[in-house]
Amino acid sequence: MPCQVELITETMMFMIHTFAGDKAYLTKEDLRVLMEKEFPGFLENPKDPLAVDKIMKGLHQNRDVRVRFQSFVLLIAGLTSTCNDYFVVHMKQKGKK
Amino acid sequence: MPCQVELITETMMFMIHTFAGDKAYLTKEDLRVLMEKEFPGFLENPKDPLAVDKIMKGLHQNRDVRVRFQSFVLLIAGLTSTCNDYFVVHMKQKGKK
Repeated sequence: MPCQVELITETMMFMIHTFAGDKAYLTKEDLRVLMEKEFPGFLENPKDPLAVDKIMKGLHQNRDVRVRFQSFVLLIAGLTSTCNDYFVVHMKQKGKK
Repeated sequence: MPCQVELITETMMFMIHTFAGDKAYLTKEDLRVLMEKEFPGFLENPKDPLAVDKIMKGLHQNRDVRVRFQSFVLLIAGLTSTCNDYFVVHMKQKGKK
């Protein structure tokens, strides 16, 4: 059975290769499908229907909109870091009550 | 059941909070224990007994050796990216045979 770090590494690699197919990158449409299937809560926000466009812009991609592996991994890293910040603040607030 | 991206995010958060305890960072010793338990193959390399020291140096930490959450997530991102580069090259070589 793989350990936690191995599991994370494997899952990220498997995910991008599944959605990118034979390409070495994700297109905007690939990213949209990936987010829709693997992180549906993110796109369900009715206040932000342009979520995928904002991500693409945030990844500093050009108009060809290709997300390479490294950018995708950094996207997940940023997302995790933001979730953790929220978690820590939330836990502190909970502790004060 | 969580989706893949949620699973990765949760696992990383759970892992660092487990090994850091009540602190908001990992010490060098915490990182060594984490790598030993969650990524044992990495430390089993007899050619590189200083692996943890090199990681700490690579994370640009000072002598107090504290790895904060963001640095840890970037470490996992870098590790995943390197594994993927190896995988892609290996697959290309396999395809040529």
